Amino acid sequence: MAALLKTSYPWIKLPLIVSAPMLNAATPALAASVSQAGGIGFLAGGTKPAELDNLLTKTTALFGAKSQHRRGSNQVLPIGVGFQNWGCDLDAMSPIFRKHCVAAIWLFAPKQLSDFSSWAREIRSASGGRTQVWIQVGTVLEALEVMRLARPDVLVVQGTDAGGHGLRQSASIISLLPETIDALKAAGYPNVPVLAAGGIVEARGVAAAHTLGAAGVVMGTRFLAADEAGIARGWQNEIIRVGDGGTSTKRSTLCDRLKETIGWPEHYDGRAITNKGHLDEDSGLSDAESVRLYKEELKNGDEAWGDHGRMVTYAGTGVGLIKVRKPAAQIVQETSNGALEILRRGAGVPDSKL
Amino acid sequence: MAALLKTSYPWIKLPLIVSAPMLNAATPALAASVSQAGGIGFLAGGTKPAELDNLLTKTTALFGAKSQHRRGSNQVLPIGVGFQNWGCDLDAMSPIFRKHCVAAIWLFAPKQLSDFSSWAREIRSASGGRTQVWIQVGTVLEALEVMRLARPDVLVVQGTDAGGHGLRQSASIISLLPETIDALKAAGYPNVPVLAAGGIVEARGVAAAHTLGAAGVVMGTRFLAADEAGIARGWQNEIIRVGDGGTSTKRSTLCDRLKETIGWPEHYDGRAITNKGHLDEDSGLSDAESVRLYKEELKNGDEAWGDHGRMVTYAGTGVGLIKVRKPAAQIVQETSNGALEILRRGAGVPDSKL
Repeated sequence: MAALLKTSYPWIKLPLIVSAPMLNAATPALAASVSQAGGIGFLAGGTKPAELDNLLTKTTALFGAKSQHRRGSNQVLPIGVGFQNWGCDLDAMSPIFRKHCVAAIWLFAPKQLSDFSSWAREIRSASGGRTQVWIQVGTVLEALEVMRLARPDVLVVQGTDAGGHGLRQSASIISLLPETIDALKAAGYPNVPVLAAGGIVEARGVAAAHTLGAAGVVMGTRFLAADEAGIARGWQNEIIRVGDGGTSTKRSTLCDRLKETIGWPEHYDGRAITNKGHLDEDSGLSDAESVRLYKEELKNGDEAWGDHGRMVTYAGTGVGLIKVRKPAAQIVQETSNGALEILRRGAGVPDSKL
Repeated sequence: MAALLKTSYPWIKLPLIVSAPMLNAATPALAASVSQAGGIGFLAGGTKPAELDNLLTKTTALFGAKSQHRRGSNQVLPIGVGFQNWGCDLDAMSPIFRKHCVAAIWLFAPKQLSDFSSWAREIRSASGGRTQVWIQVGTVLEALEVMRLARPDVLVVQGTDAGGHGLRQSASIISLLPETIDALKAAGYPNVPVLAAGGIVEARGVAAAHTLGAAGVVMGTRFLAADEAGIARGWQNEIIRVGDGGTSTKRSTLCDRLKETIGWPEHYDGRAITNKGHLDEDSGLSDAESVRLYKEELKNGDEAWGDHGRMVTYAGTGVGLIKVRKPAAQIVQETSNGALEILRRGAGVPDSKL
């Protein structure tokens, strides 16, 4: 299945590392660096076609300067774009799919799963079949439904350790991935490449995902601490500072409420580093007062971040494994090569060497 | 590290499979079968010394009939016993440690972590150093504290996917295991074997745990559906029936409240298959009424189990990967051999073969 990915995305190196389409954080420079290093970099599509147009024009220019990474024989821009579908207008976005033909469009969190059908149809039509459709799911049931409704070219299976938005209730990839892969096989979809997301930040997680049956992995939190990430330095500092991600992060809808984001389907929330905002919520502080304090603190810039503050600090449980800021290309190469090395030596289990 | 385990437990086969000390479920027949198949089987110590004495006498008899598995050169019974320490009296249990010298005693959930010190000291003293001390933790912080306080011979690191009791808030082993292993190394404990627990039910999970750095794995839920498990057939049927463990199970203290178990330290709860009991709780049913209905339903035997009922159906998120009841020995062998096979072929990643 990993080999199949290489046919669709000829520039990639295996094991495949994908950078998640994180809103604002996933800059053109981040996406381009990841793809140029042998991964697949994603931009976040957002909700405004003109802004996405602008991001894609910038990304195209980054490839233009390096001819070896210029669009392949099928003239596809070797990155992807991800959407949080509940807030997006397909008719408004479709001209962008036609203008900038990207390698993949990643769909996630629609108002209802059936919305994936029209998105998949339009993406394939607008790109003449050159843009592949990726869909993110978080349960076995969703995976089967999504295959039936939209036949994505790639399924991204996100476990509950992931930072940022995901299902309120789900399993880690440790059990979710093999169960999903078995269910896909049993339902007659044995050939869809499945990528693992959630809690993976370095080589060991990538190797583990492959033993679980993944064809590649997606990392979000690790790329938040990439040089190219478009986030506040205060947030990056927190990613590097915080350890013990199982207790220092939690899933909640608080971050959406602080940002006054309305419209997430109710079975989603987001994992973030806990701070004063979460503590005050547990103590009964009203949303109105929380929002007021949050807006007040926004004025303090990088100083506002930390466990004394209320900044929205999305991060997955793997945050404790991230100790330094690095260029995105280095993250891709170290993680992929490190995973290959672990798999080559059979994880060091005695007698497991060939 | 896996090789180190083989020195301490000479009968084991690698990768090591351990059956968890599940109260009542972990029968003498289950523990003995697991150890005889090359794993390490555990009994649950419970709270009553006379009952544990009886269980250990029965288990000893099972080994007596098979000379090749009779106590090794150091006269140790090749199984372990696990305690939920908050409810246990060390002085009362200590004579049992002296009478039946088991290979390992597994400690978990004390009133305070410092209780592990006196338990570890007494176990080592009572057994003349022949019984090894295992301690279960669920965060990086706990792992470091426990090493400092009690220097266990083996650390069991349990992720949040696990069935039954565990920390209310923690990460999956996908990130918890590598972060813990790195922290142990940095703190000067590079040589303690770390076993992974939580969401592992078959070969792929075992292989994944090893790529994450585990020296072996613990499985609970998988052994609930072993022929030898001491649980109701209704419970076993649920383990086999239920899929999509991330949504069909959840963490809650409801099960303790239904069973009127008082005393779990407040940072623990338990993962179980959700049923009518959970739904009614969400709708505001009082504990008193829940308990009354639960006791009523207990009278219905195996018929009481299922999503229409209130039976306490502990299971981890891996429950959906369990499709058939099997002898425990077969579980151990298939899982261990299967994991070795996956590690040998480098998880099928192209170019990962030697």
